[in-house]
Amino acid sequence: MKRSERLVAMTHYILDRPRNLISLPFFSEKFDAAKSSISEDLGIINKMFQHEGIGYLETISGAAGGVKYIPAFSLEGSSRFVEELCEKLEDPARLLPGGYLFMSDLLGDPETIRNIGKLFASAFRNKDIDVVMTVATKGIPLAYAVASFLNVPVVIARRDPKISEGSTVSINYVSGSTRKIQTMVLTKRSLSQGSRVCIIDDFMKAGGTINGMRNLLMEFDAELAGIGVLAEAEDEEEDRVVDDYLSVVQIVNADERRGSIEVRPGNLLNKI
Amino acid sequence: MKRSERLVAMTHYILDRPRNLISLPFFSEKFDAAKSSISEDLGIINKMFQHEGIGYLETISGAAGGVKYIPAFSLEGSSRFVEELCEKLEDPARLLPGGYLFMSDLLGDPETIRNIGKLFASAFRNKDIDVVMTVATKGIPLAYAVASFLNVPVVIARRDPKISEGSTVSINYVSGSTRKIQTMVLTKRSLSQGSRVCIIDDFMKAGGTINGMRNLLMEFDAELAGIGVLAEAEDEEEDRVVDDYLSVVQIVNADERRGSIEVRPGNLLNKI
Repeated sequence: MKRSERLVAMTHYILDRPRNLISLPFFSEKFDAAKSSISEDLGIINKMFQHEGIGYLETISGAAGGVKYIPAFSLEGSSRFVEELCEKLEDPARLLPGGYLFMSDLLGDPETIRNIGKLFASAFRNKDIDVVMTVATKGIPLAYAVASFLNVPVVIARRDPKISEGSTVSINYVSGSTRKIQTMVLTKRSLSQGSRVCIIDDFMKAGGTINGMRNLLMEFDAELAGIGVLAEAEDEEEDRVVDDYLSVVQIVNADERRGSIEVRPGNLLNKI
Repeated sequence: MKRSERLVAMTHYILDRPRNLISLPFFSEKFDAAKSSISEDLGIINKMFQHEGIGYLETISGAAGGVKYIPAFSLEGSSRFVEELCEKLEDPARLLPGGYLFMSDLLGDPETIRNIGKLFASAFRNKDIDVVMTVATKGIPLAYAVASFLNVPVVIARRDPKISEGSTVSINYVSGSTRKIQTMVLTKRSLSQGSRVCIIDDFMKAGGTINGMRNLLMEFDAELAGIGVLAEAEDEEEDRVVDDYLSVVQIVNADERRGSIEVRPGNLLNKI
């Protein structure tokens, strides 16, 4: 196989397995090429990944060594994406009662979701994360996108237990949107003790739901490793109960009566 | 930029945008290379994608032409993946009351989900699909994975309307698992008239839920373009109300009392 052909196959193989350790001998055998050639190939791939602003190859030396693709969006690409997102969200037709925004169209676009996943994975790239957690329903695609680039599993808390999930642990929490006490459940076998968990959700006002997930983690003796939300907005009646989090965008003024809305980049860009 | 470097960047660009039409002049300008060189590069990429069993480049000629990456898993890779999945599912510890199977661990693994997405996208590659639809909760990651390889948006029906979604259309249906009349809602602005919809879900017994989605499509004057389920199982009490569907696996014997279970490849492999 020619180098040019090998590079196409290797690029696909690496991109398809973010944060997987791939050994040089594996590539060497798969493509029937000398280790020195494979080494050179990886140098070219690493250079181009950085050039394209999509991350880099981390080299782990030693007998059990190899390379890992670490997805890391460039600041330039990230800023451009976040600014475009802000513009799309500033459409007054998105305003819903209670200061909420219609975002289902954006959340339904797999490319947008994948890009948001890359953003969070870039911002959390130096955190030690074992699992991504969210609560049904809207955070689910985001959680999978993040988990996919971090190469960790997803667990989903639900508002009601379901027959096809087995035994569950449940907690009560106060939801900001309804001011009611709600229940959140998580399947017992889904999270092991000591897991380092990254919480992902689509929207946060006072943070009651995210706080609920944090309480659920305590029941499982799991650790909080990070919190990421797509959009944050002020709650007029309640102070925020969550402080250390990253947000992609910040809704600063959603005035249904006037039909006006202002959306700014959130604090996530500072971590890129 | 050298050809070897350009090939890495082009491979990433193409893989990141399945079913997007990319013009030769675009690549020519982006990489400051002659159209004839770009053409040769695309030939190499096409050859290697087929060699790796991940699909092919479709060439659209003419002034508005270019190439499109069509994801299509090879039969060999698909069969191997489905067989491994069957083995994992045959673990008796997965048996839950009512002939259900614990699958949350597999559904929580982004790589497994991505591979299932590739399978469905390969099987549906010649269908004209505008949107993928599922119902909350477990089908959501599958629906996104399929949609991502088909390059179409996802719409999610819910069992209850939510404040942050705007006006909804609702229908009633009979759920197989509870034998109760349930409600399913879909946001009004999420689906336009005449859309060709592919329905994706995780589990099907009699098919009541999928039939509910089909009825919802009629309310939106949308068309059914295909149905895909991860796992199908016989319902002991009720005949199936859905016939034309693809399944990845088939649960033929789930006997909770004996602690035995048999899982076979579904009919999807016939379409690869």
